[in-house]
Amino acid sequence: MLITLEGPEGSGKTSQVPPLAEFLTGMGCDVLTTREPGGTPISDQIRRVLVSMENQALHPRTEILLFLAARAQLVEQVIKPALADGKIVLCDRFGDSTLAYQGYGHGLDLGTLRSMLAFATDGLQPDLTLLLDVPVEIGLARKKKDNEWNRLDAYALNFHQRVRLGYHQLAEEEPGRWRVIDATQPKDQVQQAMRNAITAALDEKKRNQDPRH
Amino acid sequence: MLITLEGPEGSGKTSQVPPLAEFLTGMGCDVLTTREPGGTPISDQIRRVLVSMENQALHPRTEILLFLAARAQLVEQVIKPALADGKIVLCDRFGDSTLAYQGYGHGLDLGTLRSMLAFATDGLQPDLTLLLDVPVEIGLARKKKDNEWNRLDAYALNFHQRVRLGYHQLAEEEPGRWRVIDATQPKDQVQQAMRNAITAALDEKKRNQDPRH
Repeated sequence: MLITLEGPEGSGKTSQVPPLAEFLTGMGCDVLTTREPGGTPISDQIRRVLVSMENQALHPRTEILLFLAARAQLVEQVIKPALADGKIVLCDRFGDSTLAYQGYGHGLDLGTLRSMLAFATDGLQPDLTLLLDVPVEIGLARKKKDNEWNRLDAYALNFHQRVRLGYHQLAEEEPGRWRVIDATQPKDQVQQAMRNAITAALDEKKRNQDPRH
Repeated sequence: MLITLEGPEGSGKTSQVPPLAEFLTGMGCDVLTTREPGGTPISDQIRRVLVSMENQALHPRTEILLFLAARAQLVEQVIKPALADGKIVLCDRFGDSTLAYQGYGHGLDLGTLRSMLAFATDGLQPDLTLLLDVPVEIGLARKKKDNEWNRLDAYALNFHQRVRLGYHQLAEEEPGRWRVIDATQPKDQVQQAMRNAITAALDEKKRNQDPRH
């Protein structure tokens, strides 16, 4: 089962991953966590190009191709083998980030993005996507406070607003795959909501696989 | 005018660029030369990921996305501004390398590659492409002798043979744009053939622009 976490900057996604993985392991699941961009030595080298504050000249088309390159490597080297082993794979960002950031944020054609995305992921789609939703001003203020500011955060405020609206639109288009979680809540409540969403999805999957139903 | 040089490994393309640029400058042209992958600080960072012998795990889909990322940056930051200034841009490798190496070499779908290529280059097409053609065994032996062996050269011999055949096919499909030059000739004869092909193309362009014709 492939579960992806999505959300605008400062939604607190990344810090929710370890307790979530711990919870799933406690339930007896074999869990693998990854982050995007990164997650393999090659993807980490690509990540460094993407986040370096020196690379202000990075063009949006270059940016998306680098994200896709890092993701292609992650899918082949890590995600596909883990899924084949029956693991739950928990990804901090995946394909929907491309649609939200490069499509809705930078205004690149969504059809082109979807076909390049299919190339990069070899057609792999998440089973469940959790959107940690937070108003842009709150999210960016959190990241500044935590000294986690990088090149990608420095885009204009209305860029980040388009990204957030893009996420909402994607969630509305595929309500079966997406769960929207209010990430302005205290951290432990966000964690609880994420656990509830995942256990519900696992239960549903079990029911569908059970031959008595 | 955008002129691209293509050819399999060891065709001697790269060493032909400086004397060719010198010749064109001597004719009064404003010339800019680039190499692929590379040519901008960001593209050079991407090039390092591509050629590093440590990155043996690099997947063909990752590889092509990195080549396209480096190219997108080069097009936006260097090639487009130079063409807008009326310069002759001389590229050591361009889009046809993707079709030859990733398409014919690695067997990726040519249609998908062409559409991703159009995305990366923003639709930019060369006016003239010189194919420096050399049998695979001769080309690879040259590179080994010159100690210029890198990760990309280490693919199997039949991969490089498919690349060479791919170049021939591309040249046959667009005879108006391609000129095939026998690169087993002595270096100065190869240089002369390149100069002849370019001056003929420049003359033709001038004739087409001349209102008396």
